[in-house]
Amino acid sequence: MSETGPALTPEPPYYAVIFSSEHTGEHAGEYAAVAELMFRLASEQPGYLGVERAGGDDLNITVSYWRDETSIRAWREHLEHTVARERGRSDWYSSYTLRVARVERVSTFTRPDRP
Amino acid sequence: MSETGPALTPEPPYYAVIFSSEHTGEHAGEYAAVAELMFRLASEQPGYLGVERAGGDDLNITVSYWRDETSIRAWREHLEHTVARERGRSDWYSSYTLRVARVERVSTFTRPDRP
Repeated sequence: MSETGPALTPEPPYYAVIFSSEHTGEHAGEYAAVAELMFRLASEQPGYLGVERAGGDDLNITVSYWRDETSIRAWREHLEHTVARERGRSDWYSSYTLRVARVERVSTFTRPDRP
Repeated sequence: MSETGPALTPEPPYYAVIFSSEHTGEHAGEYAAVAELMFRLASEQPGYLGVERAGGDDLNITVSYWRDETSIRAWREHLEHTVARERGRSDWYSSYTLRVARVERVSTFTRPDRP
């Protein structure tokens, strides 16, 4: 799994969870530590396929990829994840939108080496 | 349309185009100018619902939302967009993955004001 480039995922169909969030900026150190723990835990769940993360001053986007809806639901009900989400709503996020989407087709590009 | 927070989209189903890219860093000023033009042009297309953008040192993620596959296809075939994509592959992107996904369900959170 690469956490710095586009995720390497299998042939579609599979599922994407698009999580777009604005942060309060409060408890930022604690948020960062819990976020890293959640990324590690997620990556150990059945059906996890990969993650992509990008953050700016305004908006953070995390897209996680999953084999099917069952694996998404199991991760949503994971105890530590549930506790972390509650903290997110009370302290870390000023707003978020979470979308569950079925990936239907994919195209990729890798720049060829040039002489 | 907000370009700084989660996009305000209608009830699903609709479509998401998840574009995750790594940049060469070459021609960065020109890239930024063309990207802004493309965001403006996209927002004027039939079926466009909104966009979310986040960028970091490693990975940029842009998610654009569309009413249906027809509107995605029309934007893909738009002349100026096609020209810009060619420039992207020759100069701006070291790699990218583009995923077309059908959004099936959404949940949102807005932090209540606290006293």
